[in-house]
Amino acid sequence: MDARHALSISRSIAKEVKKTIEKLNNYEKGKTVGFGVDGGETKLIDFMAEKAALDILKKEKLTVFSEESGFSGEGDVFVALDPLDGTFNAENNIPLYSVSLNFSFSEKLKDTFFAYVYNLSTDDEYYADVKAYKNGKELKVSDVESLFCNSIFYYPTKVLPFKRIRVFGCASLELCMVASGVFDCFIDIRNVLRFVDASAAIYIVEKAGGKVTDEFGKPLSEKKIDERLNVVASNPKLHKKILKMVL
Amino acid sequence: MDARHALSISRSIAKEVKKTIEKLNNYEKGKTVGFGVDGGETKLIDFMAEKAALDILKKEKLTVFSEESGFSGEGDVFVALDPLDGTFNAENNIPLYSVSLNFSFSEKLKDTFFAYVYNLSTDDEYYADVKAYKNGKELKVSDVESLFCNSIFYYPTKVLPFKRIRVFGCASLELCMVASGVFDCFIDIRNVLRFVDASAAIYIVEKAGGKVTDEFGKPLSEKKIDERLNVVASNPKLHKKILKMVL
Repeated sequence: MDARHALSISRSIAKEVKKTIEKLNNYEKGKTVGFGVDGGETKLIDFMAEKAALDILKKEKLTVFSEESGFSGEGDVFVALDPLDGTFNAENNIPLYSVSLNFSFSEKLKDTFFAYVYNLSTDDEYYADVKAYKNGKELKVSDVESLFCNSIFYYPTKVLPFKRIRVFGCASLELCMVASGVFDCFIDIRNVLRFVDASAAIYIVEKAGGKVTDEFGKPLSEKKIDERLNVVASNPKLHKKILKMVL
Repeated sequence: MDARHALSISRSIAKEVKKTIEKLNNYEKGKTVGFGVDGGETKLIDFMAEKAALDILKKEKLTVFSEESGFSGEGDVFVALDPLDGTFNAENNIPLYSVSLNFSFSEKLKDTFFAYVYNLSTDDEYYADVKAYKNGKELKVSDVESLFCNSIFYYPTKVLPFKRIRVFGCASLELCMVASGVFDCFIDIRNVLRFVDASAAIYIVEKAGGKVTDEFGKPLSEKKIDERLNVVASNPKLHKKILKMVL
């Protein structure tokens, strides 16, 4: 097993996983069918994705560790498989979910010789052997030194009582996802949202039965077209609880 | 002007904006060409998107307020236009950006009679007249009452010194965006990331010149295939500063 062979296996897996999950309808995607090795829920979409990947991996002499099934197979090369990273996104057609494969000469991270990540919705392909590539072009990390850099991913250690917090950087679509019931709430009280960013989606949330106010529970109805807004939008049952919490 | 007419205008705008920005290459997208009415940078991609939208709106009798140009046109109906919400995502091919249009009988939010949000990358269309719709199907917000609900959007009021914080919910792709230099850093020290989620992308970040450790600056090389990881991944210049900040 060398990096070239690992790349070819990875590509077949990405292709099969994509084909498999595209066949599922929205109801099927969200169905819970069991529990993974770490006790987390297994959704049908995870189960099907893993099956598609394992069917390919088991033709090779490999020791595989995967999210849902744990260890399977035998071989000197170890493969860490996440057939579907970003399950919640995949279930809800939010286009950020992937297949992830790590090939190592031991069960340790340090003996990795090939790694592969494939964005199943945009078809962007990342991999690394001795260098790193995206869609065949060499990658380089950024060069800034200041903490006030361009952009970071930061998963806060839990201080808020929520199960799942997301920040997509597109208020209009985020609010529409609240209108759809995919998300329960949207909170942005930094005094940076503009009327042009949020007003259309606020109306959509209201017409879908949601409640939208500022952080004090005051309606936004008097807000004008060139003003900034603070927005707390949620289903009506949650709204009071959220307000209590943010103040 | 009624809701039906507003819908038809909105659809033409979404179509034209999409066509216009698809023509720009990656270099052109990121170019700064001026400043908007509120002092924020105007990128070429914003400018072109706005031009495409205004060319359609100015054929109607409307008072338009838009992100870059402020007020234009004249009419009894007010349109709040964000021709490109999620510019940073659009520039970097992160598939979450939209056109947003709010139609009101005054310059106030309360007199809105039609609202439209179009996801330019997935082509999902949201709008509301007396009801709210996604791709023609009626929308309803969620029904949960517990604060530990399914998922929320939460933009923290600033406690961290970063310019832009995102949480996409897909560690493998987020780390690959650090490898690409689109993001400067990834921090997840909640002890929930699994080796299968993150190991491939960690290797890709390293091969792109990045530094990856746990929150104490310890290498992850001894981590095993069935273990959990805490991850701080960034460009090498930022890494020490980030560690100091997170502990």
